[in-house]
Amino acid sequence: MAQSMLLYWGSGSPPCWRVMIALEEKQLQGYKHKHLSFDKNEHKCEEVKALNPRVQFKKKNCCKCLYNESAFKSQGTRLIPDDPAEQALVYQRVFETNNLQQKMYDVAFYEWYVPEGERHESALKRNKESLIAELKLWDGYLEKMGKGSYLAGKNFTMADVVCFPVIAFFPRLHCPPERCPRLMEYYKMLKDRPSIKASWPPHWLEKPEGQDNLKNL
Amino acid sequence: MAQSMLLYWGSGSPPCWRVMIALEEKQLQGYKHKHLSFDKNEHKCEEVKALNPRVQFKKKNCCKCLYNESAFKSQGTRLIPDDPAEQALVYQRVFETNNLQQKMYDVAFYEWYVPEGERHESALKRNKESLIAELKLWDGYLEKMGKGSYLAGKNFTMADVVCFPVIAFFPRLHCPPERCPRLMEYYKMLKDRPSIKASWPPHWLEKPEGQDNLKNL
Repeated sequence: MAQSMLLYWGSGSPPCWRVMIALEEKQLQGYKHKHLSFDKNEHKCEEVKALNPRVQFKKKNCCKCLYNESAFKSQGTRLIPDDPAEQALVYQRVFETNNLQQKMYDVAFYEWYVPEGERHESALKRNKESLIAELKLWDGYLEKMGKGSYLAGKNFTMADVVCFPVIAFFPRLHCPPERCPRLMEYYKMLKDRPSIKASWPPHWLEKPEGQDNLKNL
Repeated sequence: MAQSMLLYWGSGSPPCWRVMIALEEKQLQGYKHKHLSFDKNEHKCEEVKALNPRVQFKKKNCCKCLYNESAFKSQGTRLIPDDPAEQALVYQRVFETNNLQQKMYDVAFYEWYVPEGERHESALKRNKESLIAELKLWDGYLEKMGKGSYLAGKNFTMADVVCFPVIAFFPRLHCPPERCPRLMEYYKMLKDRPSIKASWPPHWLEKPEGQDNLKNL
């Protein structure tokens, strides 16, 4: 089965990284893959467009993670618990990751998303406040769950698969650690997990320090 | 079980409406509920904040739908299919609904979200183009699936529960039907479904015509 898969991926893209972590956790290594360079716009080539009319990996890849979990339930790490209440918490964190990701992008990549003539200090300030509040919320989740906890409880789940690739941007882009001390402990606990280490973005390995987009948060 | 639930809800809010449709489909009527007026800011009261630090219903309620499906699998309509491929499509549409909703808000409620001094015709124009492309995508999904199809295939699923409350905004806010003819057929097919009719927003019943925010799309 793993051999019949073909994964198109971009280095550092959270949606792609998610799938790669999930494949590692489900012991589905050995899949074929094709690295697309975002710089060269290879992710917008006809080959990919034919597969994915959105030309964005976000939603589709989240579903690939869920598909793999459902099709290979008993293989590797169990990522979605059976208990309905535990399951609901996993899905809640999965859905909420979208908030954290969007708010991080709205600050870190503000100049990339907003054309020059439409930028406003007041808007960026609002985006920063919104991101700070969001980080506080996530830090509170971990605080409440206790030391050494994963995002949805005592076990590593789909919530961690989906959220870790977003959380990893914060230390990389120099977010002040005091904005989210629990998240930073969580990051340190997870960064050497085999599935995450094996799928670490190659260009992050080459250049471990990112730009300082989040320094003034 | 239904009797032990308490639902806080706002009329017309997609996240609330979703839960109400799902409860109907799962035959979990008879739950207690409390109607909160958005106009009076009742959704930001202490009672609700204590339950939901986000003071937004979006993500949490999506998970309530999934929780109910998981806890009451064999009761009422089966909303998540067992087959992994069918299941993946349902989740894909559920995740994608967020795109459609956000892009609709970015046009219909542009003036509400963006302070006066930060508004730009160029930004609104871009938002409109993005919404038109998104509608085309969804219309294409239905076109491909064939006449009388639901969003994820031949059966009504969680994809419809989650997406219908967003789709219902388009005719209400006077979106030109030629922007999404298949979606409008789908809307007509579903609007009298018992679960949807029973949970129709009361203030939409009182005032069936909304403002014309989407007229110039």
